[in-house]
Amino acid sequence: MSLTVYRKAHFNAAHRLYKEGWSDEKNLEVFGKCSNPKFHGHNYELEVGVSGDIDPNTGFLIDLNILKHIIKEEIEDPFDHKNLNLEVPAFQNVNPTVENIAVEIWNRLRKRLNPKYGISVKLYETPRNFVVYNG
Amino acid sequence: MSLTVYRKAHFNAAHRLYKEGWSDEKNLEVFGKCSNPKFHGHNYELEVGVSGDIDPNTGFLIDLNILKHIIKEEIEDPFDHKNLNLEVPAFQNVNPTVENIAVEIWNRLRKRLNPKYGISVKLYETPRNFVVYNG
Amino acid sequence: MSLTVYRKAHFNAAHRLYKEGWSDEKNLEVFGKCSNPKFHGHNYELEVGVSGDIDPNTGFLIDLNILKHIIKEEIEDPFDHKNLNLEVPAFQNVNPTVENIAVEIWNRLRKRLNPKYGISVKLYETPRNFVVYNG
Amino acid sequence: MSLTVYRKAHFNAAHRLYKEGWSDEKNLEVFGKCSNPKFHGHNYELEVGVSGDIDPNTGFLIDLNILKHIIKEEIEDPFDHKNLNLEVPAFQNVNPTVENIAVEIWNRLRKRLNPKYGISVKLYETPRNFVVYNG
Amino acid sequence: MSLTVYRKAHFNAAHRLYKEGWSDEKNLEVFGKCSNPKFHGHNYELEVGVSGDIDPNTGFLIDLNILKHIIKEEIEDPFDHKNLNLEVPAFQNVNPTVENIAVEIWNRLRKRLNPKYGISVKLYETPRNFVVYNG
Amino acid sequence: MSLTVYRKAHFNAAHRLYKEGWSDEKNLEVFGKCSNPKFHGHNYELEVGVSGDIDPNTGFLIDLNILKHIIKEEIEDPFDHKNLNLEVPAFQNVNPTVENIAVEIWNRLRKRLNPKYGISVKLYETPRNFVVYNG
Repeated sequence: MSLTVYRKAHFNAAHRLYKEGWSDEKNLEVFGKCSNPKFHGHNYELEVGVSGDIDPNTGFLIDLNILKHIIKEEIEDPFDHKNLNLEVPAFQNVNPTVENIAVEIWNRLRKRLNPKYGISVKLYETPRNFVVYNG
Repeated sequence: MSLTVYRKAHFNAAHRLYKEGWSDEKNLEVFGKCSNPKFHGHNYELEVGVSGDIDPNTGFLIDLNILKHIIKEEIEDPFDHKNLNLEVPAFQNVNPTVENIAVEIWNRLRKRLNPKYGISVKLYETPRNFVVYNG
Repeated sequence: MSLTVYRKAHFNAAHRLYKEGWSDEKNLEVFGKCSNPKFHGHNYELEVGVSGDIDPNTGFLIDLNILKHIIKEEIEDPFDHKNLNLEVPAFQNVNPTVENIAVEIWNRLRKRLNPKYGISVKLYETPRNFVVYNG
Repeated sequence: MSLTVYRKAHFNAAHRLYKEGWSDEKNLEVFGKCSNPKFHGHNYELEVGVSGDIDPNTGFLIDLNILKHIIKEEIEDPFDHKNLNLEVPAFQNVNPTVENIAVEIWNRLRKRLNPKYGISVKLYETPRNFVVYNG
Repeated sequence: MSLTVYRKAHFNAAHRLYKEGWSDEKNLEVFGKCSNPKFHGHNYELEVGVSGDIDPNTGFLIDLNILKHIIKEEIEDPFDHKNLNLEVPAFQNVNPTVENIAVEIWNRLRKRLNPKYGISVKLYETPRNFVVYNG
Repeated sequence: MSLTVYRKAHFNAAHRLYKEGWSDEKNLEVFGKCSNPKFHGHNYELEVGVSGDIDPNTGFLIDLNILKHIIKEEIEDPFDHKNLNLEVPAFQNVNPTVENIAVEIWNRLRKRLNPKYGISVKLYETPRNFVVYNG
């Protein structure tokens, strides 16, 4: 596929990085200040890409209002102003690294979008660190 | 190809989205406020990518001054401060969605650039909505 | 006043610059391609600043949700996806330059906000041209 | 003073907004989802401005390396990857709104910088909400 | 004055910071790696603000095309792709710190613009360090 | 590989473009003002992408602190505040175009990173010109 339409969204959340079963020292060694047990947080900036063909009737690849609504239901409503570790079930046993959050977002969108579309997820944890996941 | 050089450009234009033959109600339902018959407009921000090999004499993949000149002739001069529906022939029978504008830009550049180069077009309609087209 | 809280907003609109009573040649000479009778358009990016004191009960200078709602009612709803010359009465006899649009926005907000607050309006017509108006 | 030098910095932190003594309902009504007892978080982006005269020996208003070091000691080290409510004593009885955080930052810098300098603090809580405080 | 119109411009230049008469050790101590005798360089991003009143005939505070032309003649042509120390006479005896460059730019614009206008100069040496000078 | 983690970095450097053996006229014709023998400079902004799989123990594709340290050693320390032509041996016989600098950065990172990782380098010479190189 060579045409991709992108829509931005964002959510603000708290998290911490740690592995259950590891000592505090080990968690601090691996995750540094990100393992702070009292949490820290980020403004996550999200770019969702949907790949496919142009509908000749509308000139749209996908109706961006529908995509915006799906992103709101699947990502913004459950993640925004939340503690990812404590309030998002997907991260109760999965470390909420930016990698794992991007994969979770991709999986949620995959279930909602027509299989004819390709999906890419770009997620900024900070303006300096980010990931791209294409499934 | 694994090396791509990018050049930014921009143009400001008016447009409306609608399909001839559809009723006003149908157009409003599909295109929302973008179907306003009196037009609205955007600052389109464009990133043109050209892929290929480095010329060992110059260290350039392509002379960016030549690319800049082609973008000016093919895109900025005919699109900037224009009404895309009324003044750009390509959009008299084609809805000027950001998808269709990106494809039109790609086609115009394809005719002007050496076939040895790959071309990608990233077009922002707003800072929040954009497309990438690679032909 | 030394504390100011800012909120961003945006609207996409069509406009043209011209002075009634001037010939087409004179309008073209003064306003250049901005005088195109078929309109062009912009993504206007707006930063509204409200100056004042912190409410010791809440820690807020102003509730940003209330400010957001006022900006929506006074600016976004009447300006977004509109033709400023044809559809916004304030610009039927006033040239919709970025200067005049900023003054109009400030006047609309002044009527809605408590007089104890200072107001500043920063309005980007393009990422390269913008104004600041403080009343 | 008419010359100001600016230096950017940033920190990522968790917080919640609430007023002790108010019921949960009242806190939710006033602070919305920002009152989530399990916290959320932000990437705070900071611009510190220092106003004064140019030292004719160096051409500097202030040595930015010294300013950078003071910002690190006073702001980044105590705030970064912290829970502002639980781990920064200044916010144990003061609601960590972006207004109050900016004032706290200004006060910390005021104690460290020569009184001949003016200080301004611009603090982004998100790319869309920010404050400026000049003392 | 409460209305200001801004125009962006940019130039790329080499420079070094040092004080004649100081030893290499002293220069290194004060200016750090910026004193490298073989030069380094920056993309300087410039925002020129002009303050004044709206001309009721045009709706313009100032014709931005005229301002753009003055910035090109006074700043971009003499500074762009130059070595500031060696090729710009103003910096032969003045250290080209971002503070001194901003003052020089302001002085050049002051000579060209009608005295009825106020002038402000914002100059980014990097995206993280910048100055504002208002005369 | 479909998951990539990105880290930003930056360096400020002087350079000139020219080909040894060509006359000054020929160099000026091909490289324009970039061939200024007294050098000019840029703020190079770098985005390094590393592609691979998530380590199920940590949730990391790669420890970004390690990546940050490698970028500092291999790119920032040798390039920052340097004259690329005169002080970086790799560019003594290779023209320091943004294309060639990106390839050099990629090669340096390739030697330091585990072969299981893919590497991409995005290098901005200015906010308007940049390259992407994937090896």
